[in-house]
Amino acid sequence: MPDPGNGTTGRAAWSVSDGLATLDEPAVLLSRSLDAVFTGWGLAGGAVRRSYPPLLDVGALRSLDYFRNFPHLGGAVTRLREDRLGHHAQAGGAGPLPAADLADAALLLPSAACYACFLDLSGVRLTEPLTITTAATCFRNEDHYDGLRRLRGFTMREIVCVGSTEDVHAHVERYHGLIAGFGAALGLSLDRAPATDPFFEKDGARSLMQRLSPVKEEYLHRDGTALASANHHRNFFGERRGLTYRGSPAFTGCVAFGLERWLHALDDRFEGDLRAADRAVRQAADEAVRRAEAPG
Amino acid sequence: MPDPGNGTTGRAAWSVSDGLATLDEPAVLLSRSLDAVFTGWGLAGGAVRRSYPPLLDVGALRSLDYFRNFPHLGGAVTRLREDRLGHHAQAGGAGPLPAADLADAALLLPSAACYACFLDLSGVRLTEPLTITTAATCFRNEDHYDGLRRLRGFTMREIVCVGSTEDVHAHVERYHGLIAGFGAALGLSLDRAPATDPFFEKDGARSLMQRLSPVKEEYLHRDGTALASANHHRNFFGERRGLTYRGSPAFTGCVAFGLERWLHALDDRFEGDLRAADRAVRQAADEAVRRAEAPG
Repeated sequence: MPDPGNGTTGRAAWSVSDGLATLDEPAVLLSRSLDAVFTGWGLAGGAVRRSYPPLLDVGALRSLDYFRNFPHLGGAVTRLREDRLGHHAQAGGAGPLPAADLADAALLLPSAACYACFLDLSGVRLTEPLTITTAATCFRNEDHYDGLRRLRGFTMREIVCVGSTEDVHAHVERYHGLIAGFGAALGLSLDRAPATDPFFEKDGARSLMQRLSPVKEEYLHRDGTALASANHHRNFFGERRGLTYRGSPAFTGCVAFGLERWLHALDDRFEGDLRAADRAVRQAADEAVRRAEAPG
Repeated sequence: MPDPGNGTTGRAAWSVSDGLATLDEPAVLLSRSLDAVFTGWGLAGGAVRRSYPPLLDVGALRSLDYFRNFPHLGGAVTRLREDRLGHHAQAGGAGPLPAADLADAALLLPSAACYACFLDLSGVRLTEPLTITTAATCFRNEDHYDGLRRLRGFTMREIVCVGSTEDVHAHVERYHGLIAGFGAALGLSLDRAPATDPFFEKDGARSLMQRLSPVKEEYLHRDGTALASANHHRNFFGERRGLTYRGSPAFTGCVAFGLERWLHALDDRFEGDLRAADRAVRQAADEAVRRAEAPG
């Protein structure tokens, strides 16, 4: 700390309140280092970097069955009604803003980083596979929040592939090795396990299909926290958004990393010394580069 | 572009729809370079890096007169009411989510990056000045949106100072030189001009006070776009949040950079060649370092 004695000394590297995290410098730096590692994997695989709107249109999400599958998950964004502004400017008031004073909500906070990517690709006709990496602050309403493991707002880095089903399988498979190797170098033993998305109707058709034919896998820290997931969406987004690959609805898949969950796992592994964790992350990344550059 | 012919060729470096921006790789990289420059200025001035919650508590904002001054500006975050989830999962529907189906809103999207910083410092007693740098996605409801100049959601890098009024003045003054020099190196002639915050009551006491005794200055691109602002909050946040410096309510100030607005100005200056702009930004930053390291 550059200012010992000014109140920052002894400050915890992170704190969480009501599902929202505050990170002090060592956690900020570790988060950046992790993001650089995952982004680097994407770039090495030919990904382009893009940044998408931080809010999504309700109508566009409806075209992706968002409210059918996840009506409980989404954060709706709205504003005070024009005719109630004066009241709030005058009154002070207490407690939350009453729904009766709010306008209808036309926008939603993203609950995953790749929705905006597929919306942006609507109507695009690809002749070669496309890989994109993007990061977003994502938001989920949960029954409960739990430290950095389960936040209301969190940072997701994704590497998305669009192409044939084979392209998507190869994309997802590529990360299996990278994630396992990186985890091992950091002393994390990550269990690879099938998973389902948090559907509203847990016995609904979509949820059932996902359990019968797993298309989502997670990488679990020893306490069960999912640090990363690999997802195959089949040609769902391609069909819904007119996104084609060589004339047919494109297949898509993504690999997603929850940065705060990696902080949690490394905080656990390095017993709270996030600067040591940061050094280990940089070293593990350098070793991976050396291995990749080594002949044969 | 790594995949010529796959639909990304010829893609514009950025696009804006309904006040929300999508950035392609050259714009993402330029934004990162700019952020690195501004962050570097903060670090050279002793700033610590922190990251804050992406949502703010309505009650906490009330303690800062937020709704008195800016009831129109804030994005309220809520969710579908529990008893309306089934309806939305079944019905499909169209248009925005009706306010009647929403829960009360206890959270707000930040409209500036430093609110969360001052809320986090509530009750802290400093004996030395503290400088913090943080970035946040910020959101503002505006009458109209205009390209990258005026967005609904945008990225703000801030460098915040907490201490005595002299500390804050010195902090803000330090950036005058840096901003002017950096702008000049990039071929941007930035006008320094007094400004007021976008108060709800334009003739209200707070707005009047700010116009009589300017505490906010902006750096304007030739088309009037404010690329950065320097703000002196007096001891307002110190008083409201029990944040003290050597026993008295602390004085605070901040310098804020709107990253998308810099993209806009550099897009203008470099006639759409954002890769050339990125090279110029890196070079201007390197020169500033060399100047700073030069003897005398």
